[in-house]
Amino acid sequence: MKVLVIGGDGYCGWATSLYLSSRGHDVTIVDSLARRAWDRELGLDSLVPIASTRRRIDEWSRVTGRTIRFEELDVTDYAPLCRVVRENAPDAVVHFGQQRSAPFSMIDRDHSVRTHINNTVGNMNVLWALHENAPGAHLVKLGTMGEYGTPNIDVEEGFITIEHNGRSDTLPYPKQPGSFYHLTKVSDSDQIFFACRVWGLRATDLNQGVVYGTSTEQTALSPALVNRYDYDHVFGTVLNRFCVQAALGHPLTVYGRGGQTRTFLDIRDTVRCIEIALEHPAKHGEYRVFNQFTEMFAVGELAEHVARVAREHGLACEIAHLANPRVEREDHYYNCVNTNLRSLGLEPTPLSDATIAGLIGLAHEHIDRVDARLIPPRVTWRAEETPLDASAVA
Amino acid sequence: MKVLVIGGDGYCGWATSLYLSSRGHDVTIVDSLARRAWDRELGLDSLVPIASTRRRIDEWSRVTGRTIRFEELDVTDYAPLCRVVRENAPDAVVHFGQQRSAPFSMIDRDHSVRTHINNTVGNMNVLWALHENAPGAHLVKLGTMGEYGTPNIDVEEGFITIEHNGRSDTLPYPKQPGSFYHLTKVSDSDQIFFACRVWGLRATDLNQGVVYGTSTEQTALSPALVNRYDYDHVFGTVLNRFCVQAALGHPLTVYGRGGQTRTFLDIRDTVRCIEIALEHPAKHGEYRVFNQFTEMFAVGELAEHVARVAREHGLACEIAHLANPRVEREDHYYNCVNTNLRSLGLEPTPLSDATIAGLIGLAHEHIDRVDARLIPPRVTWRAEETPLDASAVA
Repeated sequence: MKVLVIGGDGYCGWATSLYLSSRGHDVTIVDSLARRAWDRELGLDSLVPIASTRRRIDEWSRVTGRTIRFEELDVTDYAPLCRVVRENAPDAVVHFGQQRSAPFSMIDRDHSVRTHINNTVGNMNVLWALHENAPGAHLVKLGTMGEYGTPNIDVEEGFITIEHNGRSDTLPYPKQPGSFYHLTKVSDSDQIFFACRVWGLRATDLNQGVVYGTSTEQTALSPALVNRYDYDHVFGTVLNRFCVQAALGHPLTVYGRGGQTRTFLDIRDTVRCIEIALEHPAKHGEYRVFNQFTEMFAVGELAEHVARVAREHGLACEIAHLANPRVEREDHYYNCVNTNLRSLGLEPTPLSDATIAGLIGLAHEHIDRVDARLIPPRVTWRAEETPLDASAVA
Repeated sequence: MKVLVIGGDGYCGWATSLYLSSRGHDVTIVDSLARRAWDRELGLDSLVPIASTRRRIDEWSRVTGRTIRFEELDVTDYAPLCRVVRENAPDAVVHFGQQRSAPFSMIDRDHSVRTHINNTVGNMNVLWALHENAPGAHLVKLGTMGEYGTPNIDVEEGFITIEHNGRSDTLPYPKQPGSFYHLTKVSDSDQIFFACRVWGLRATDLNQGVVYGTSTEQTALSPALVNRYDYDHVFGTVLNRFCVQAALGHPLTVYGRGGQTRTFLDIRDTVRCIEIALEHPAKHGEYRVFNQFTEMFAVGELAEHVARVAREHGLACEIAHLANPRVEREDHYYNCVNTNLRSLGLEPTPLSDATIAGLIGLAHEHIDRVDARLIPPRVTWRAEETPLDASAVA
């Protein structure tokens, strides 16, 4: 299958590109390298050094004999995007090419608007480019479970049947996004659903949980293939960050009481979910939503798990509670459905002590590269405090 | 009350600015004059000639002795917007400053993205400007009833209580916007709700129906105060367009079967609704939604009404059905709640024969200014036809 992977140089995108290539698909990475630029702008870096895109791709070819092509372009530039879609005539487009950090989007007005334009104008361009150049291609778009917020009813997969005043309809599931970043994902979903209804495009919207881990079978083949490992307060996801704190011997910092429950999955399941979506494409005109996660944990519970594993490996490990920089419920009902991907063959990789130990060990190997000042939260959602500007983050 | 009216030079904005000024409010119009530029770009013009913004405002001062200030700026430019908010320290901001045509947003990629940036980046800037400069000001934002689409259940005002698997929550009403324009309004609503939750802003989101009429008590005071009267396929709303067709002796063109039911209101009720929202502001941290319309009509029914009035005034008047350029249900359940504004004192002006006769008469007066080629739809929603580009529209 010919697949364009937009954002294929990023955290999930890189692992997915290698996995799809290893499975025999013809992969072209489309990436603006914006994420590497944002790291430089904010003074951040992956804990594990990552090779340049060209170097990574060459190494993949050397190690496996397989070719991944690379088009360096920004999806907010429409003409080059159309050229790539026309020239490649893809069977599918996997779209990861978005600014994915909620704190980044809350730094200040400038970062919220840049996130919005990057994500939603990019998404519009992808839709128009498919409509005008490859209307039969299957769009696989990464959304987030954070679109739903934490409603007091079960979270279904994209749609819900509502009975109201004696009538009934199946309608888009109500969304309560919790940051300007999350707002862009909701907007994307609405746009994609519209494009499927009106233009007959076909799309799968994958509402993904929080991803943890860095290593897959493919990234482990060579040091030049390793994936990024973010631990900072902007791009570091919670479990990866806890493991770096454990390696440092620092307290694991839980925001607020830690009762916030979220959905999670291993990056090795992310790549498999994408493959499942590609192997079972949406029909023409169909917009479907899969909730892409395997387990639910409260943040405090996750900290306890990491602390236990750390202690079993001889590390001192405490848990500290910080004032929550976000505005979110810390004690709430949360139950999310994830049957679609399971029914198509996903076999979940549950969070194991070994995975946590592996992440702590990887952090240990690169401990000299940690800048501990980048871990505590500095971007606030709240009105009472002055929003930090970019220079304060860096 | 000190009020900023963003988009105060436009169709609803101008009528509202005069009305609020006549009621003793201290009004500052903020407008980029983008709408006048779009008319020039697409070769369109108001049927009734409208004076320049400066000329209109000077005339208002001459006729009434009241002052309206004018700041020519684009809300997508953040720094000048902040300056105006700081300098004016408004009690309220009424935000009409958006590209409001669904066909405009569907012309091609460029127009969809321009609509998106104008509307949603503008909206983000307004939220950030209030957050940073006037967090206590009441935001009154114009949305559209088109955000809801045509669900098979009653349309509530912004939120709906859902019972699901034995649990219950009151959640944002599911949206099914029908164009890239409508998508921007949904995105705006989500952003405003977020800003109220997180920053404690206070906002009223007015989901307005299709507005008809042009004249209010204030615009009638002088020819230099008259409001725009759009009849073209891009900006002309359905009832105004029918009245121009009746005056021309052309068939009233109904898209498809005409069973599409929509909500409507007289522009004299629009201005009163804004006043009601201002007089009863949202509380700090509150996001509330009012459905702003007075009646529901099927498009075919509206055509029959106009045709009857035209014939009673001695005009030959036929109804023609055109292939629907939009993708929408032509036979559907539709029932929308509008109790919030009624309960705060709105006394609806029902659509009368006199109003229709007045619009036909006004079109007659300016019949030499009509370009009949601008009336038939030229922008299509559908995939089968090639989307028209801007030059084809003009």
